[in-house]
Amino acid sequence: MKLRLLFLFIPILGIAQKPEKKNYQYINPIIGTQRMGHTYPGATVPFGSVQLSPDTDSISYELNKKYNGKVYEYCAGYQYEDKTITGFSHTHFSGTGHSDLGDFLIIPTTGKLQLNPGTADNPASGYRSSYSHTNETALANYYKVKLDDHNIIAELTTSQRVGHHRYTFPKAEDAHIILDLMAGIYNHKDKNVWTFVRVENDTLITGYRQTQGWARTRTVYFAMAFSKPIKNYGAAKYDENNIYNGFWRKFDQTKNFPEAAGHNIKMYFDFETADNEQIQIKFALSPVSTNGAIANMQQEIPHWDFNKTRKAGELLWEKELDRIKVETITEDDKVNFYTAMYHAFINPTVYMDIDGSYKGLDQNIHKANGFTNYTTFSLWDTYRALHPLFNIVQPKRNADMIQSMLSHYSQSVHKALPVWSHYANENWCMIGYHAVSLIADAVVKGNANFDTQLALQACINSSNLKYYDGIEYYLQYGYVPEDKNGSSVSKTLEYAYDDWCIAQIAKKLNNTTVYNEYMKRSQSYKNVSDASIGFMRPRLSDGSFKQEFDPLDTHGQGFIEGNAWNYSLYVPHDVEALVTMNGGKEKFTQHLDSLFTMTLPDKYFENTEDITRDGIIGNYVHGNEPSHHVAYLYNWTGHPEKAQQRIRMILDTMYRPKPDGLGGNDDCGQMSAWYIFSSLGFYPVTPGSDHYSFGSPKIKEAVLNLENGKSLKITARNQSAKNVYVSKIELNKQILNRTYITHEEIMNGGELIYYMTNKAGK
Amino acid sequence: MKLRLLFLFIPILGIAQKPEKKNYQYINPIIGTQRMGHTYPGATVPFGSVQLSPDTDSISYELNKKYNGKVYEYCAGYQYEDKTITGFSHTHFSGTGHSDLGDFLIIPTTGKLQLNPGTADNPASGYRSSYSHTNETALANYYKVKLDDHNIIAELTTSQRVGHHRYTFPKAEDAHIILDLMAGIYNHKDKNVWTFVRVENDTLITGYRQTQGWARTRTVYFAMAFSKPIKNYGAAKYDENNIYNGFWRKFDQTKNFPEAAGHNIKMYFDFETADNEQIQIKFALSPVSTNGAIANMQQEIPHWDFNKTRKAGELLWEKELDRIKVETITEDDKVNFYTAMYHAFINPTVYMDIDGSYKGLDQNIHKANGFTNYTTFSLWDTYRALHPLFNIVQPKRNADMIQSMLSHYSQSVHKALPVWSHYANENWCMIGYHAVSLIADAVVKGNANFDTQLALQACINSSNLKYYDGIEYYLQYGYVPEDKNGSSVSKTLEYAYDDWCIAQIAKKLNNTTVYNEYMKRSQSYKNVSDASIGFMRPRLSDGSFKQEFDPLDTHGQGFIEGNAWNYSLYVPHDVEALVTMNGGKEKFTQHLDSLFTMTLPDKYFENTEDITRDGIIGNYVHGNEPSHHVAYLYNWTGHPEKAQQRIRMILDTMYRPKPDGLGGNDDCGQMSAWYIFSSLGFYPVTPGSDHYSFGSPKIKEAVLNLENGKSLKITARNQSAKNVYVSKIELNKQILNRTYITHEEIMNGGELIYYMTNKAGK
Repeated sequence: MKLRLLFLFIPILGIAQKPEKKNYQYINPIIGTQRMGHTYPGATVPFGSVQLSPDTDSISYELNKKYNGKVYEYCAGYQYEDKTITGFSHTHFSGTGHSDLGDFLIIPTTGKLQLNPGTADNPASGYRSSYSHTNETALANYYKVKLDDHNIIAELTTSQRVGHHRYTFPKAEDAHIILDLMAGIYNHKDKNVWTFVRVENDTLITGYRQTQGWARTRTVYFAMAFSKPIKNYGAAKYDENNIYNGFWRKFDQTKNFPEAAGHNIKMYFDFETADNEQIQIKFALSPVSTNGAIANMQQEIPHWDFNKTRKAGELLWEKELDRIKVETITEDDKVNFYTAMYHAFINPTVYMDIDGSYKGLDQNIHKANGFTNYTTFSLWDTYRALHPLFNIVQPKRNADMIQSMLSHYSQSVHKALPVWSHYANENWCMIGYHAVSLIADAVVKGNANFDTQLALQACINSSNLKYYDGIEYYLQYGYVPEDKNGSSVSKTLEYAYDDWCIAQIAKKLNNTTVYNEYMKRSQSYKNVSDASIGFMRPRLSDGSFKQEFDPLDTHGQGFIEGNAWNYSLYVPHDVEALVTMNGGKEKFTQHLDSLFTMTLPDKYFENTEDITRDGIIGNYVHGNEPSHHVAYLYNWTGHPEKAQQRIRMILDTMYRPKPDGLGGNDDCGQMSAWYIFSSLGFYPVTPGSDHYSFGSPKIKEAVLNLENGKSLKITARNQSAKNVYVSKIELNKQILNRTYITHEEIMNGGELIYYMTNKAGK
Repeated sequence: MKLRLLFLFIPILGIAQKPEKKNYQYINPIIGTQRMGHTYPGATVPFGSVQLSPDTDSISYELNKKYNGKVYEYCAGYQYEDKTITGFSHTHFSGTGHSDLGDFLIIPTTGKLQLNPGTADNPASGYRSSYSHTNETALANYYKVKLDDHNIIAELTTSQRVGHHRYTFPKAEDAHIILDLMAGIYNHKDKNVWTFVRVENDTLITGYRQTQGWARTRTVYFAMAFSKPIKNYGAAKYDENNIYNGFWRKFDQTKNFPEAAGHNIKMYFDFETADNEQIQIKFALSPVSTNGAIANMQQEIPHWDFNKTRKAGELLWEKELDRIKVETITEDDKVNFYTAMYHAFINPTVYMDIDGSYKGLDQNIHKANGFTNYTTFSLWDTYRALHPLFNIVQPKRNADMIQSMLSHYSQSVHKALPVWSHYANENWCMIGYHAVSLIADAVVKGNANFDTQLALQACINSSNLKYYDGIEYYLQYGYVPEDKNGSSVSKTLEYAYDDWCIAQIAKKLNNTTVYNEYMKRSQSYKNVSDASIGFMRPRLSDGSFKQEFDPLDTHGQGFIEGNAWNYSLYVPHDVEALVTMNGGKEKFTQHLDSLFTMTLPDKYFENTEDITRDGIIGNYVHGNEPSHHVAYLYNWTGHPEKAQQRIRMILDTMYRPKPDGLGGNDDCGQMSAWYIFSSLGFYPVTPGSDHYSFGSPKIKEAVLNLENGKSLKITARNQSAKNVYVSKIELNKQILNRTYITHEEIMNGGELIYYMTNKAGK
């Protein structure tokens, strides 16, 4: 009897008590979708292969000029201020500054069949629909919106490789689901290389699309299942030339003909719906084949229970978020934190079928044996903080990512590690060979579950690829001469750091010869330092410095996406020398102060992608990566309190829980990783070393639940918005009289306590 | 001492005796290369996946009109009258009337690098070279020619999947080998869909080319090895638009850059050569991947011994030719016979990697388990005699070909058997669903080592594919109405025959329901017979015959590639009824006589591909397929002597051992199979029955060495050019008082004797 009562009471208590809010419920995918964050609001699971998200426009890059550079805004397909949605596509980058993808756009419609998107001004001119944010919900692995023009509720969720759509229709004799295989992000009239579609039966479609874009040779295969049989269907082909083949002579291929192929194809599927009838779609992707996509679908979502798919994805997010449990000063801080974790755990993405098959850089099918294969390596961005973060909270995945990069290397005809790689392609974006930083960071931190000798060889090869970005000259002159190869200073500085990373790997592997060689190379940054002006400065092949030079300008001064003020601080592997080189601690402190407090007029960056007013504090550019370590440099000048103040200010101003809350492109999680580290109170200024430099924590409490079974509890005593300074730090009850914590200390767990105050100390 | 002498004598005797000429030495690949044979002179092994052959021009089909329909002449890439060679490509159809392929054209040159072919009038304007037939040798699996403009001797040979080139250069500092990935047969500016090339190292190139042409989605992968390291190399890209990707910003991709991709690419490789230095190339193909191509190369030709490759191919030919050993009246007859066997044993071609992997119709990679997968099914042609020939002399291959067709069926989204299929594509060329004839012929003849129930279902599906070529109307009206679907009479007649074939399969499988249904369908030919004029005639959907009608004209009269005179005789499964329908034996005999003796003016066929003056005797068209059985019909009218006379006349006039020796397109071996059968004295008028109708043998003696271990010796007593009549036939010493021999009789072996005479009897 008592037991019975107990059972009855539990649910009642459950209702009575306000249930604890799960961490994934703090994820707000809308953050960063307005202005320059370039995130997408749609559904995905952690590191998911499918990113099913609404697109609000698809300005082609032919039209880019006409639309005043608008294509750049659509890197993730969605802009919060737009009033219409063109449809829901299955692949999106998160936070990139150049783009691609947007594969397989689906839009449900009612009324007259229209196969073109129409215009935002007049959505009735096409298949797109108006929508409003009041009818929009974006949660972890769940997106919902009402398509006003079609009176359809659209809901999206995903598994690892499958997008799950649920559309609630009105009563309609003319309901359609359109599959636009021409739509895409950063589109171009010649982007579609080939499209192939088969209507296997009245509920299953298969096919693939090959594009040339940022990725030069990219093919994505799909299988699309409907919960309800198609009534009629059709294909429209928009090719300029229809090459002779028997199809054209034999068949009406436009209606109920079960296959289509060509450059430019759109499909539509007709249904008759009752009021509130739901039609679901499972849309599986594969990098390998349509059979692979079918298998992915059958194994990942064998049912038609949309809520089950959604719930499974939420649980995956919860599991990943459990790796860091935080308590924050405000609820907004918690939204910021977990949304940052969400954005950090979106990329790289898993790139293989459920059986481990994937397409390699050599376009052959490979099998990932003993590891998970990943793609989307935005390494110029993510080597800085994202992968160091993974070495703490996602070590297994990080080792697999490096294994994926080593596979890339093995498949590379250049025998080079990835630079910016996605979908079995190298797009060579930005500069450096920063894959070596990831490898060094993993090796130095003991997270090297891969062939380290092979990895070292891969690093050596990558750093000697003579025809790549001035390396030939870098080896010859000790710097990249600006007259031989542009952005020469940025390249020289980043190569120098990368070379230091290679030296660290060699050191760990007891390879003294390589260590010595690369330590020497790592000093090359000195070759572009002009002591007379206190800036790094482009040098010519005759040894002289470039005459015309403006250290404020981001255009044509020997730097890429940055000016001399910011880039001259880029010697992360030799900060002490940098300080000395710049006149010592006090002078360097003043220099840093100036950076944060001076004004950078628009004209100095208005033609530079990835730098916008949103991301600038003084002349410090947080919206782009080269200066992400800069606020921490005060730790080397005897002014950690200045680091603390600046960092807290950046945390507060560059990350806000709003659509326009990100100060710049999230860059595949790098901006978010900066937030996570800095919120916890430390940051990897020098990936490849085992040090993390202290800043000013923003959390009240955090618990890192580590894969090794240990946990580190981080507490910020007297934490508040005003108490931005750290007066004392204790690790496991020992006071730390230094400005850094080591990786080993973190991984050994225990308790780290910051004592916060509003008084700046040293 | 005596023994020693003996050893010494043997070689001396060997030299003294003229060595017996091997059968393969009678192969003359030049036959059919002039005018309309559409054969190619290059190197291949039996059913070889690679057909390495010179191309003399590549008129694109945009230029076709300007060049007066010349593209049609280049179906096999080579025209004997041409004075220049553009290069050597690796894939060719033999004898087709439409075309495709010509993949991976290679040309060695010296002097200034030129990447365009130049013109035939001025070969110095490009890479092409003059040549003369006096410096040309074409043998089984060996082709040799001197490229006069470059002073290079080119030699070609092959294994199953690898082309082996040997080029003998003069002394040259500027020797080049060009790989033109834009060249092709039946070319078009938009034909190349994608090209991908990697220079793996200084002796190995890999890549692939995807084209849209006759095959809509066709990809061929390759691996190319050089016997000597490349000195320098480069790529030229001819795309109209270069879509943004980082390559263009980072690299000079034109020289010594190891990868290239785009629509239109050409590669060149530079060498320095000593006088008479030989550079060899091994060029492996794969339908699956570049790794597959590399494996094919490594396993098939692990060496650089050109002569060894050549010899191995010759032995393969010798082994295949051994299946029929003939003695003929003249040496020319033997050349004709073994060249016909050569052309019959070129197609279909093996289509899988050495490990059995191949790309299927669904674009997925499949494995051929327990069979060899073939492609290039020109079924409207080859069901008539080529596959019946295979059922006698290549039964294992024929069963595998049917297994390949069943795989095609399983992979087909239409669930249909192939019509005209090549390289994982259906090109739907010509009419009918004649795959059912191959299946019936194999089932009836007991050569059905495949799933016969699956095969029957495949036949039933194929014959009910409503949207295919008027089948919907055929099922509704009992004929294809001309106002609903063109070439209606040809379709009705061929469907009726095909349906009879399906009935034969059902009969063999004891499926009475299907048998009865399809026997009924097989009578549909009667629905297009207009007794009032004695011709088959197009009928409209209202039941009336089309008013305007000219039984001589091949244009727009309800027939395809034929006129009513020829096509009205197409009831191969019910010849007795046909004779009756046409007024009985004597009237029908006169009708046949008229066919062979009347005149068909040019205007009646001048716009019809595949019909040319070369292939016409009276109004009988031997140069195209629909009438191939017609001369044998005299056996049903009580005038076998007329059959004998006509057949011998056709053998003598339509097949001559000269470049222009073929009376029409060889059509993947069908013309040649007709020659082989008819030379042996019998022909499969009705594939799907086990009867072969007697004609007039042309051989003196033939031995069929059968796979079952038995052999049939065929002797034509008193054989001579004049003795074209058969007075008596004995099978195993029993006189055959009938006009046919059965398949079982042939396969049981023994001796078949024809008694030849110059007197026409009955």
